[in-house]
Amino acid sequence: MTGRDGGADLQPIEPSPIVILVRPQLAENIGAVARAMGNGGLFHLRLVAPRDGWPQERAWRMASGAHRILESLTVHETVADAVKDLHRVFATCPRPRHIIKPVLTARGAAAEIHAIGARNMKAGILFGPERAGLDNDDIACADSLIRYDLNPGFMSLNLAQAVMIMGYEWFIARDEDAAVKNLQTNETHVATKGELENFMGHLVRACDEAGFLKNPQKRPGMVRNLRHLFQRGEVTSQELNTLHGVVSDLARGPRE
Amino acid sequence: MTGRDGGADLQPIEPSPIVILVRPQLAENIGAVARAMGNGGLFHLRLVAPRDGWPQERAWRMASGAHRILESLTVHETVADAVKDLHRVFATCPRPRHIIKPVLTARGAAAEIHAIGARNMKAGILFGPERAGLDNDDIACADSLIRYDLNPGFMSLNLAQAVMIMGYEWFIARDEDAAVKNLQTNETHVATKGELENFMGHLVRACDEAGFLKNPQKRPGMVRNLRHLFQRGEVTSQELNTLHGVVSDLARGPRE
Repeated sequence: MTGRDGGADLQPIEPSPIVILVRPQLAENIGAVARAMGNGGLFHLRLVAPRDGWPQERAWRMASGAHRILESLTVHETVADAVKDLHRVFATCPRPRHIIKPVLTARGAAAEIHAIGARNMKAGILFGPERAGLDNDDIACADSLIRYDLNPGFMSLNLAQAVMIMGYEWFIARDEDAAVKNLQTNETHVATKGELENFMGHLVRACDEAGFLKNPQKRPGMVRNLRHLFQRGEVTSQELNTLHGVVSDLARGPRE
Repeated sequence: MTGRDGGADLQPIEPSPIVILVRPQLAENIGAVARAMGNGGLFHLRLVAPRDGWPQERAWRMASGAHRILESLTVHETVADAVKDLHRVFATCPRPRHIIKPVLTARGAAAEIHAIGARNMKAGILFGPERAGLDNDDIACADSLIRYDLNPGFMSLNLAQAVMIMGYEWFIARDEDAAVKNLQTNETHVATKGELENFMGHLVRACDEAGFLKNPQKRPGMVRNLRHLFQRGEVTSQELNTLHGVVSDLARGPRE
């Protein structure tokens, strides 16, 4: 099935979503992901805390010519940093439990990602580490979950295969873009994840100072729940400004 | 994205198509194919002339638990032998040239494969060797071609990825089976590839003896063209019997 086409002139097909590998373990898999991205017309890759550091020559060997994707990728210390300029984040997650977020198939997510692109917003997709998958804190950074419709009797899905399916569905669905109208008005702007994170920092600090998060065992779960709450739906930049004001004013305590 | 589910109780989801790897080069890829098949609910694997022989321990290491697929596979010397009990054969082929056969997308092929299964017929899918892909003689054994809708600017598709996409589409499409009625009547039976091959042998022998295929340079192409001709459409066993009679009678020469 391979061809002789090199990837020297591999170009992004815009607007294409950003693939974010969270704590990837094997450099070979990062290379195989780049190759799969090339097949699916994806280009933008971000790594969060790759286990063995970056760059790694082994990745280039597995990329089969998709070098431009590896050369253009960025490395981030945290998921929050990797998503801060994005408007919508999807998390691939085989078995979501106790999480109230929309769950989409890969096909459904591909359609949404095209609709997001048509509104001039940036979308990203989180893929977890090879062995364990995304943890609850990673998933808390996402708006929606993607669960692949695959054999439930055999769940061991290779990382590059997971990226391949998403890229394949995205590439096929691009033809339907014309049907998606630009729904964005000039009055509202969906907040970026960075703006949301900035507000979350403000909120958590205020809660800490107010003693609301004083139980150290319950604190991580409560912060995560707050994060889930504000991720749901699309918060606009203007709404966030209002929320900042609310938190600041509440934190100041009762006025005399 | 991986789970901890072993593949010890991996079961075929019937009727599932047969994956046929033609002259695969790397045992690692055979293992990765088995893993992808497990994800897509496929089970039946055949190898045609694997370069390094079989079995190979390296395949088991890459199969990530899909051992039952590797343990159940069969090895064949030729494509003709690997398809002889099948009724419909698909060939994955990135750039078909000068071949008059139906070309399907992976999604279209998945729908057809389910329709074939609903008629109690057996389907197989040919995947070519890693570097070169299927050759013209391999493709001559197929009824239809499958061309993936992927980035034409980067054609280097890994073997296991090619199988993954097909398995993914097949697994999703299985839900639509109920809509496909059993179209087979009791009067006709589509010939197996073995029956067709048997007739082709008869025909080519007769042509050779009649001097029709006497030009050694043109012979392979002419045999291939005959093969293409009889592959097109679904020849029934009864029709083949008739054709055998025609060839036998013609070869006997004019009666006095």
